[in-house]
Amino acid sequence: MSILVVGSVAFDTIATPSGHVKDILGGAATYFALAASYFTEVRVVAVVGDDFALAHETVLTSRGIDTRGIERTPGKTFRWGGQYLDNLNEAKTDFTELNVFEKFHPRIPREYSDTQFLFLANIHPALQKTVRLEMDGVRLTGGDTMNFWIKGTPGELAETLKVVNVLLINDTETKMLAAEKNLPRAASKVLAMGPQALVVKHGEYGATIFFREGAFGGGSHPFRAPALPIDEVKDPTGAGDSFAGGFMGYIASQGEINREVLKRALFYGGVMGSFAVEQFGTERLQNLTREEIEARFQIFRELTHLA
Amino acid sequence: MSILVVGSVAFDTIATPSGHVKDILGGAATYFALAASYFTEVRVVAVVGDDFALAHETVLTSRGIDTRGIERTPGKTFRWGGQYLDNLNEAKTDFTELNVFEKFHPRIPREYSDTQFLFLANIHPALQKTVRLEMDGVRLTGGDTMNFWIKGTPGELAETLKVVNVLLINDTETKMLAAEKNLPRAASKVLAMGPQALVVKHGEYGATIFFREGAFGGGSHPFRAPALPIDEVKDPTGAGDSFAGGFMGYIASQGEINREVLKRALFYGGVMGSFAVEQFGTERLQNLTREEIEARFQIFRELTHLA
Repeated sequence: MSILVVGSVAFDTIATPSGHVKDILGGAATYFALAASYFTEVRVVAVVGDDFALAHETVLTSRGIDTRGIERTPGKTFRWGGQYLDNLNEAKTDFTELNVFEKFHPRIPREYSDTQFLFLANIHPALQKTVRLEMDGVRLTGGDTMNFWIKGTPGELAETLKVVNVLLINDTETKMLAAEKNLPRAASKVLAMGPQALVVKHGEYGATIFFREGAFGGGSHPFRAPALPIDEVKDPTGAGDSFAGGFMGYIASQGEINREVLKRALFYGGVMGSFAVEQFGTERLQNLTREEIEARFQIFRELTHLA
Repeated sequence: MSILVVGSVAFDTIATPSGHVKDILGGAATYFALAASYFTEVRVVAVVGDDFALAHETVLTSRGIDTRGIERTPGKTFRWGGQYLDNLNEAKTDFTELNVFEKFHPRIPREYSDTQFLFLANIHPALQKTVRLEMDGVRLTGGDTMNFWIKGTPGELAETLKVVNVLLINDTETKMLAAEKNLPRAASKVLAMGPQALVVKHGEYGATIFFREGAFGGGSHPFRAPALPIDEVKDPTGAGDSFAGGFMGYIASQGEINREVLKRALFYGGVMGSFAVEQFGTERLQNLTREEIEARFQIFRELTHLA
């Protein structure tokens, strides 16, 4: 079934211990869409400038991604520069040039109105909510956010959380959002804000999904998926968005939405995140095969499953 | 089968957000012995002062632990004071009074010479090596160490690592020991120093066991066990030693030592660590039942296993 992602398309300038690149295609919506494209039909709503060339769009369309929702406006595409020279787990931002993204107001093409799954990547919570309300036929909505909105627009974020089914954020964001240092307690507080499930991403330690009691046909027991211990993380950029793409993409590919599907989706999220960091930018996500994905899913299983 | 632990018995003064306690029974050997006692026959070599009362010894003997190796010397028992008020993941030491532990020279009772499993808790690596060489009939030796020895006595530690089969340390210690920031690469370097397996403890994120290629009948694929997301960690003291006690105790309880046994042992390590932190000091480890342990093992399984 189809999934729509609304978020940023950007040009990234990145330095890591493995090298550096300038103005390569990136952005949350790009990573998400590529990762999800191995599982289901993907649609994108984003904004780009007139520097967004056919070659950039082809990265998406050659994976079968529907780019009719990518709006072109005069000006430059969103640019971000960052480095991971001291710490691969956290980017140090060198610059952020919002450019055309500053006035991004998501417009959903009429052809997308039958979309069944929605992912609200990290944009202003008020925009997230507007999109969500417009897409009133979706079966499941996933969402992301960040410290900037948690601190800066808590009221608007609270409203958005009421219409998001699964929130995907990291440990620090979870604790900040709940104003609570203990993770399971923080998770309970976040679930009380609206979502039926909360995926907390732990970086190199994997991710945990917390459920609201009764949601998706089960109790309140959490579930944890690993990350792959990787010898060389070339570029961590987009790992979280690729995780979200694998997670949501797998769910959208299944007929039913239940606990077992969500647990497997958590594994597929980890799988797609592990591929993303193997090469700079979206390179690794452009040329995967479903066989490679299934083989890595098996490795994740063997990494954690007793006989 | 029997397991011998050599390490500290101490009186701890601890403050956490859940409360504070003064001069309660602690020490690595104590936590290890209690945790292991639910799986196998346990023997202890340690040193205490004349303030170590019958009531303290009874904590161990009532769990069937053989305390004949606990040497009494004139003076005071090792005392440690610490707090976790700001951060439950890392103790801030208030004071360390080594007392009789300063001149600890492990003496192995003749009755212990048939011991089949050995755990060298965190003491001077030269002492660890002496004990290991004396116990030349053991089938498997586990060991712990810390930043103090990694930095202060690297040569002696290197010699000890050559005679330890499974080293159990945390992420920071692994990276420090290997002088390498990437965990899987650091693990490879540590394995090249001697151990056939390395257990890296990730605190609230569980633990990963890395294997030397071919060791214990398998390849080089790591295995990861979770930790339980716990609503209230009352006192993290001894979690790592309890983990080691569950891990080594389970191995000692099995006839064979193979990959599947080591993987299950990693789960049991997590299980015992999760019990330890539920109450102050060793309280929770004193009154468990094997049924409670098996029930939590099932919870750990459900936390990570797909259908």
